[in-house]
Amino acid sequence: MDPISKKTTAKIERLAEAVMKTVKKGGNPFVEIPVRSLANVKWSEKHRLVELGDQKQQRYFFNVSMAKKFMQTFLVSDACKELIESGKTTSIRDLYYVTKHTIGDTKQNTFDEQDESDPIIEDLEVAIDALREELHLFASRKGSMVGPITIRDTGDTIDLRRMGSGGWAVPSIVEENVIQFEKHEAKYVLLIEKDAVWTRFNEDKFWKREKCIILQGGGQPPRGVRRLVQRLHKELGLPVFVLVDNDPWGFYIYSVVKQGSINLAYESMRMAVPDARFLGLSSFDKEKYKLPDNVAITMDDGDVSRAKQMLAYPWFGRKEWQKELREMMASGKKYELEALSRRGISFITEEYLPRKMRDRDWLA
Amino acid sequence: MDPISKKTTAKIERLAEAVMKTVKKGGNPFVEIPVRSLANVKWSEKHRLVELGDQKQQRYFFNVSMAKKFMQTFLVSDACKELIESGKTTSIRDLYYVTKHTIGDTKQNTFDEQDESDPIIEDLEVAIDALREELHLFASRKGSMVGPITIRDTGDTIDLRRMGSGGWAVPSIVEENVIQFEKHEAKYVLLIEKDAVWTRFNEDKFWKREKCIILQGGGQPPRGVRRLVQRLHKELGLPVFVLVDNDPWGFYIYSVVKQGSINLAYESMRMAVPDARFLGLSSFDKEKYKLPDNVAITMDDGDVSRAKQMLAYPWFGRKEWQKELREMMASGKKYELEALSRRGISFITEEYLPRKMRDRDWLA
Repeated sequence: MDPISKKTTAKIERLAEAVMKTVKKGGNPFVEIPVRSLANVKWSEKHRLVELGDQKQQRYFFNVSMAKKFMQTFLVSDACKELIESGKTTSIRDLYYVTKHTIGDTKQNTFDEQDESDPIIEDLEVAIDALREELHLFASRKGSMVGPITIRDTGDTIDLRRMGSGGWAVPSIVEENVIQFEKHEAKYVLLIEKDAVWTRFNEDKFWKREKCIILQGGGQPPRGVRRLVQRLHKELGLPVFVLVDNDPWGFYIYSVVKQGSINLAYESMRMAVPDARFLGLSSFDKEKYKLPDNVAITMDDGDVSRAKQMLAYPWFGRKEWQKELREMMASGKKYELEALSRRGISFITEEYLPRKMRDRDWLA
Repeated sequence: MDPISKKTTAKIERLAEAVMKTVKKGGNPFVEIPVRSLANVKWSEKHRLVELGDQKQQRYFFNVSMAKKFMQTFLVSDACKELIESGKTTSIRDLYYVTKHTIGDTKQNTFDEQDESDPIIEDLEVAIDALREELHLFASRKGSMVGPITIRDTGDTIDLRRMGSGGWAVPSIVEENVIQFEKHEAKYVLLIEKDAVWTRFNEDKFWKREKCIILQGGGQPPRGVRRLVQRLHKELGLPVFVLVDNDPWGFYIYSVVKQGSINLAYESMRMAVPDARFLGLSSFDKEKYKLPDNVAITMDDGDVSRAKQMLAYPWFGRKEWQKELREMMASGKKYELEALSRRGISFITEEYLPRKMRDRDWLA
């Protein structure tokens, strides 16, 4: 068993041992679980992350309202331990089916729907401080990657300089026991919101010319892509640049990559990249890059209220970000990355990006 | 320029030349476009495909209601010709931006929204009988592939036997000028509906043991995956097996892979695989593979009416298919592929699939 799997198994065992100890003493066994509700989420100025606070709840066995969840927690723990020991991984949907039983001669199921087992998985993650990937559970995956780097993926050596038009499909689990980085000449990582724009960058061999790793996550990047970007940043010391649409949704994608999200605050430490830089589209690019009015899209009410929310996020409190958001709201217009194609199909790879990098025209 | 691009460019030129000829003669220039409406879609028993019929419409220049679309058709043709000549590809969203202009001093735009340019692209496809991929336009992409085959992708040689847990990300354009097949030991192609199930097959190295190529398209497979499956079938003579959920949506996915869809009937010839076999989940598998009742999902009204529609499809007219669909409706239950995990996490790769193949237990 690899070191990560050993560590995770030991964590699950410790959880069970603590309970057994209480049972032997004749006590009421419980599991202690950090609270994942909004009330226990805070912005840490020091870590520059959206983090979980210190509140914890006890889940007791001898308690009518808690007994089922207590049992479910150990059912899921046990299934994950088995997964890890067998060296297999699976989806959270699959885990639901694996652990679904009808209890004895009753009509009672261990779980009736997946929306019962998913929160238990999250409970276990925070209770033992392990990412679900370390529990051998994967999320749905999307996204692709190419660049001047060789990786190892479950024993196969893959040269991401020679991946054609398709690229390497980023899996959901990209922990060190699965993916290792080998030789590379990359100077930075470029995370692109849209697969179509990524295809433009790949086709123009931008990554070769500029020595960078390009990734796309098909909109809001999935866990695998975010974790991989964090590892490239931390382990290889590569700066991370994010390229998204000029709209509140694009800004939100950047925000999640940078400091995590409120819903998944407990995993920010393992997913977020507080140093990630916002490269564009900036609300001021329409002027700088002479985009005609007819490629602008009028913001709708949803956009406006989303932008207002962001104005109030502490991590968008800096003068430059307030200016950026206010300009978008004042104009009432948003722009897609594809709008740059109005200036030419490769304008984005040949003029926009090179000028942005040369002028260090980004926000952090 | 590669042969496919040359051919497509010539087709666009012929379209323009025909119009110019009419102009020189003082006539009313027009483009002839096969009708894409439901009334002109038929099931061809001979080809076993959903096909376009013979109805055509003329789009005239000197006609108030047609002039704008006539102009748009040539605007799109021109942009595609430029794309092909520059050796670049782009998305249909991008093409919309590229071709969007405000005309002269008017407030009139060539296109106001993408839903105006998309049908024009389809018109051009049918008018000159070229897939949009041949026009260098790509759709959004998803899906991954591994197996005992080496491919070339835009000049890079990629060994799909050594793609780790991620796999090769299938691009949207997979025509012969982009993707070529090299050495392979595959005996068949297995198209899996769900990425999570594909991951199980990849992790268990099913493709290595059984010598097959495994692909997933994240639900309804995108154009790139469908076209690639067709090419693997036609060029390498590999049988194609489809593995989907036991529900009307899963059956529909199989149906589209096999004979195309009504909406995109004009491309069935280039996308569909009439010989594709349905491997499962069959409505009779719950008995054969002893699935407990508690993993069944009750069909809702939408499921039932969808299943009824399929009963009436001519290509589901064979006795076996009627039996299959009637069994699903009689039980009122549907099953996901993941339900097999109730029998063990690798039951699907170690028992289910091998037995299906051994017993030749599939529907064609």
